Amino acid sequence: MIWIQEQVRLPAVPRGFHLVTHEVEEGLPGLSSIGVGVAHVFIRHTSASLTLNENASRDVLRDFGAWFDRAVPDGASYFEHTLEGPDDMPAHIKSALLDSSLTIPVSDGRLSLGTWQGIYLCEHRDSGGPRSLTVTAWGEERG
Amino acid sequence: MIWIQEQVRLPAVPRGFHLVTHEVEEGLPGLSSIGVGVAHVFIRHTSASLTLNENASRDVLRDFGAWFDRAVPDGASYFEHTLEGPDDMPAHIKSALLDSSLTIPVSDGRLSLGTWQGIYLCEHRDSGGPRSLTVTAWGEERG
Amino acid sequence: MIWIQEQVRLPAVPRGFHLVTHEVEEGLPGLSSIGVGVAHVFIRHTSASLTLNENASRDVLRDFGAWFDRAVPDGASYFEHTLEGPDDMPAHIKSALLDSSLTIPVSDGRLSLGTWQGIYLCEHRDSGGPRSLTVTAWGEERG
Repeated sequence: MIWIQEQVRLPAVPRGFHLVTHEVEEGLPGLSSIGVGVAHVFIRHTSASLTLNENASRDVLRDFGAWFDRAVPDGASYFEHTLEGPDDMPAHIKSALLDSSLTIPVSDGRLSLGTWQGIYLCEHRDSGGPRSLTVTAWGEERG
Repeated sequence: MIWIQEQVRLPAVPRGFHLVTHEVEEGLPGLSSIGVGVAHVFIRHTSASLTLNENASRDVLRDFGAWFDRAVPDGASYFEHTLEGPDDMPAHIKSALLDSSLTIPVSDGRLSLGTWQGIYLCEHRDSGGPRSLTVTAWGEERG
Repeated sequence: MIWIQEQVRLPAVPRGFHLVTHEVEEGLPGLSSIGVGVAHVFIRHTSASLTLNENASRDVLRDFGAWFDRAVPDGASYFEHTLEGPDDMPAHIKSALLDSSLTIPVSDGRLSLGTWQGIYLCEHRDSGGPRSLTVTAWGEERG
C-alpha cells in the first residue's frame, strides 16, 4: 500500500476556466509507482474550484464563463455579503456548484482519465491570486 | 486490504436521467468481499454525468430533465462552441453541475446507500451512445 | 492501515445552510490516529446535501439560500412531482447541484481544510428532520 500527499501551488490566473491537468500530474511524481489506486485533488479555497471537462477546445472554457457569469451575476441585488466586492459572493456560489475536490482512478501509474477529460481550475475572483491544492494518492504498488 | 477496479459499459439511453444502481452493482461482484470500505464510480465522458438521487418516483427523473433543460438551454445565443450541435455545450455545463464521479461507503459487502438513494446516469446528449464507467473499490476484507 | 466508519446524526435544522464542521469532527474521534489519509462524509438523503464553503460570515450562509431559492423555485409550474409538497422537487435538484458527499485530506490526525473552509449541511426541506451521515476515514497510522 502506497500513500502520497503533496501540496501543489498554482500561479495566479485571470478569472475564468483553465486547464491544469499537466500541473497536477507534475505535482504527483510518485503516482508512477501505483498500479491500481485513486488520486484526490483538493482545492483549499472557497472562491475557486475544480471540475473535469473537455480538454480540446478553448471555446468550451470560454463558454463555461459565459454561462456561470449569467447564472450567478456579479453584484446581484439579493446578496448581502458584499463587503469583499461584487465578485465575491458569486465566487462562493460558483465554487459550490462546481467541485472542491476531484477523485480520479489511477491505473498503471497514471491518472485514468477519459480521452476528452481534463482538470479545470475554475477561478471565480477577478484577482484570486495563487491557489493551493492538496493532492493525495493511494493504492497498490505497481507490479 | 482489497482493491477492485472494473470497467462497466452502460448501453445507450435517451437524453435524460436514468437509474443505474443495479448495473453498477452488477459490475462490482467483488464488493461482497469488503467489510468496511469505499466504492468510487467514475464516468469517462464530459457530456454525461452521475448523481445520487431519489430512486422511487419516475416523476423525479423527468423533473430533473425539465429543470436542467431550462437552466442550460440548447443553442443559447451566448455559446460559441456550437460545432458539435446545440445540445453539446449545454451537455458540458450540465455535466459540471452534476458529478463526474460518486464516492459511496461500503459496509458488509454492499454499497451503503440511504433508503431513497439511487445512482443516476445523466445523459445530456440527444445521441450520446454507450457510456463507460471505471468503478474502483477498496477496503478491509470482510471477516 | 487504519479504517474508521461511523454514523453521525445531525439534529433537525431550519431550511437553509448551516456550518457543521465541529459536529463532523466530533463524530470521528479516531481520526487523531491517522497520519496521512482521507475522510469521506456521506449524507444518506436526497433532499439535503453537503458542501464546503466559507466558515466566517453568516451573510454567506444566508446568501446561499437566496441564490438557490431563486435558481430552483418552490412550486415551479414545470414540476410534475408535487405530491410531497412544493419544496420537495426543488430539494432534490438543489441536492444534486451541491454534494451528497465530501472527500477531505487528512494530515497529522486532522481534517486538512483550508483556512476559510467549513462543512455546510444544506437543508432544502421546510421540515427535513434529523439527517444521517456515514463518515469513513482511512489512512496510514500516525507515527
